[in-house]
Amino acid sequence: MNVTIRGRTKQYRTVFFESSRNAVCLIDQRLLPHEFVVIRTRDFGQTAKAINQMVVRGAGAIGATAAYGLAQGAMAFRGAKMAKFQSHIEVVYQTLKAARPTAVDPVNAMNQVRGIMRTGESVAEQQALALAAAEEFAEEDVRHCQEIGRHGAKLIRKGMNILTHCNAGWLAFVDIGSATAPLYAAQSQGKRFHVFCDETRPRCQGSTLTAWELAQQGVSHQIIADNAAGLLMQRGKIDVVIVGSDRTLGRTGEVANKIGTYTKAVLAHRHGIPFYVAIPLSTIDWTLKSGFQISIEERHESEVLGAWGILQDSKQGGMGVGKGGSRSTLGRRAYVRVANPDSGAFNPGFDVTPGQLITGIITPLGIFKPEELWTHRRKLGWSTRRISPAPA
Amino acid sequence: MNVTIRGRTKQYRTVFFESSRNAVCLIDQRLLPHEFVVIRTRDFGQTAKAINQMVVRGAGAIGATAAYGLAQGAMAFRGAKMAKFQSHIEVVYQTLKAARPTAVDPVNAMNQVRGIMRTGESVAEQQALALAAAEEFAEEDVRHCQEIGRHGAKLIRKGMNILTHCNAGWLAFVDIGSATAPLYAAQSQGKRFHVFCDETRPRCQGSTLTAWELAQQGVSHQIIADNAAGLLMQRGKIDVVIVGSDRTLGRTGEVANKIGTYTKAVLAHRHGIPFYVAIPLSTIDWTLKSGFQISIEERHESEVLGAWGILQDSKQGGMGVGKGGSRSTLGRRAYVRVANPDSGAFNPGFDVTPGQLITGIITPLGIFKPEELWTHRRKLGWSTRRISPAPA
Repeated sequence: MNVTIRGRTKQYRTVFFESSRNAVCLIDQRLLPHEFVVIRTRDFGQTAKAINQMVVRGAGAIGATAAYGLAQGAMAFRGAKMAKFQSHIEVVYQTLKAARPTAVDPVNAMNQVRGIMRTGESVAEQQALALAAAEEFAEEDVRHCQEIGRHGAKLIRKGMNILTHCNAGWLAFVDIGSATAPLYAAQSQGKRFHVFCDETRPRCQGSTLTAWELAQQGVSHQIIADNAAGLLMQRGKIDVVIVGSDRTLGRTGEVANKIGTYTKAVLAHRHGIPFYVAIPLSTIDWTLKSGFQISIEERHESEVLGAWGILQDSKQGGMGVGKGGSRSTLGRRAYVRVANPDSGAFNPGFDVTPGQLITGIITPLGIFKPEELWTHRRKLGWSTRRISPAPA
Repeated sequence: MNVTIRGRTKQYRTVFFESSRNAVCLIDQRLLPHEFVVIRTRDFGQTAKAINQMVVRGAGAIGATAAYGLAQGAMAFRGAKMAKFQSHIEVVYQTLKAARPTAVDPVNAMNQVRGIMRTGESVAEQQALALAAAEEFAEEDVRHCQEIGRHGAKLIRKGMNILTHCNAGWLAFVDIGSATAPLYAAQSQGKRFHVFCDETRPRCQGSTLTAWELAQQGVSHQIIADNAAGLLMQRGKIDVVIVGSDRTLGRTGEVANKIGTYTKAVLAHRHGIPFYVAIPLSTIDWTLKSGFQISIEERHESEVLGAWGILQDSKQGGMGVGKGGSRSTLGRRAYVRVANPDSGAFNPGFDVTPGQLITGIITPLGIFKPEELWTHRRKLGWSTRRISPAPA
């Protein structure tokens, strides 16, 4: 998507590969929205570290990063001995896998690259195939998001107010995103609309990443506290809700997504507002029989007890120097403890929304009712062999 | 209530009067939960300033502060000339009224004090009556909260999990609080239970004030992101919800309260969880015919775009010195901008919950169904003359 820095606009993908330098390039998502920096990793070890340190996050984006990392590792091998090459690749694979051991996207991505790579007969052939397969993995991710956008844009009419939760944007994928894809597609069709971004406490991916994305693309938007969605719906100010999914149950249509998604679905249901979930097929879990089987990660309480941001002058809400700080501290990234020092927090990362509350699931192959996923399972890539995705 | 500072426990009220110094004493709520400081105002001008600068907030608390401020002003008068005294009192009244011009509690409180005061025949008599009337206003606030607690405690059984939103605690009143009154009463009856405090973005009165209160009283509790209440209800982890009210419509049973209250009511309704609102009678508005007539204050967007707290070492989540800061900046109060710098916010302060979602309204006179308020209006102090409360 477009990124404008100091008046200059350039196209970026979240993850891309520079063959000339054998470098995996990543938008550093730890610094957004306050700084835009592209990191170039020079070897697979650095790439693994970038995954581990959350330079890159989001299912599609970490999948592509691992795929590129495997190719990067393959390309760095010198020599023609297949046995040595294969044991080198095993090290690369395990290193990248260990970077986020609970995430399945890197593993699924690398398995796909390795499968294609193995059809080569020489080291050189396997190297070339690895790179081509990684590029194809990334391209496929982009195409799928484009298709989600094509189908989802039909839901968006001129003048609509749209609610989103968390970030299932292009930063979570190679490009375009899932929940944001219908927005970008509708915008490119000349439709004007307004987006309300839930700030999405505790990690605020809505007010940081989604708001940054929408601002960069010139989409009209406002951030709201998660508490304010109900009032907007009462006032008829939300026409449709579109969110992403970390894990979609193919058998039941249940959706595990960022904490708070369920609340928005309940509110939308009460107000008769359509609630859509946009997903790439890779998030579908065909094995689980109930959302209750999904174990919900409990994250560190410090996320709830405070907030990360850029230190500012309190009086102005601006970047000037005021009573609140000195020139040396304003503008730097900091964590503030908001909550009572003697209190703890309970911090579940995800919740599960039942299919009954979901109007439709927007996939690259069209929009399905939750209960239709199972009916169309063969078309939708039903598989019991693939490692299931987990909310992460 | 009890406050323990460095191991020493002492009883405090949010607002109290020291006749020996002619001082209104206020717990400085701007510094909580990070610092506990009692401010003594030496004259009515300082008291007005304290109201204006939000040293004290909450309907009951600012009412009592204004009542004491009026008495403080009366006591400071020297002489016996009634005409001079009366014009002095008018200045005191107007000064205190102007401190928070949209709040009705100070006006209602001062009118009550002035009414009683005027029955005195000399300046000295009026001075004594003013002080007595202010004390009586504060005592009445405490008694009403005690009664709310007595009725509400019946709803709490051993082992319950209770959800609260925002702060309708003793800090918002002279003592005990409204939504917290049933908790403190149940605790004093030896019942054990657990409270989940919504952090209550954007101003976080739940994670700051309510959590501080509960920690001070030794009530088992955890803070949650506002997004997490739905998951807790899905898991059967919430047995009852108790919130306060800024304005209760006597004719319809609708409740205007902190933004997000409506969302919790919708969730509770879906899960069949009882949802109670605890109110002093002064929040009942007998004039409005519909919640849609309540104008909802839009607050500054900086509340949503960032957060206030104490600067901390990021690594530890503790108060030590780490990479994140230097010794001079850690531990000081600061505002961080969390959100994308180019994005704005929509920040409504309150929402309206329909009576249909409310199980019961806990008043000092008992628990009523929302639709019963009007039936029992005479008992509940129905009046069309009294200035109506407004969410503030």
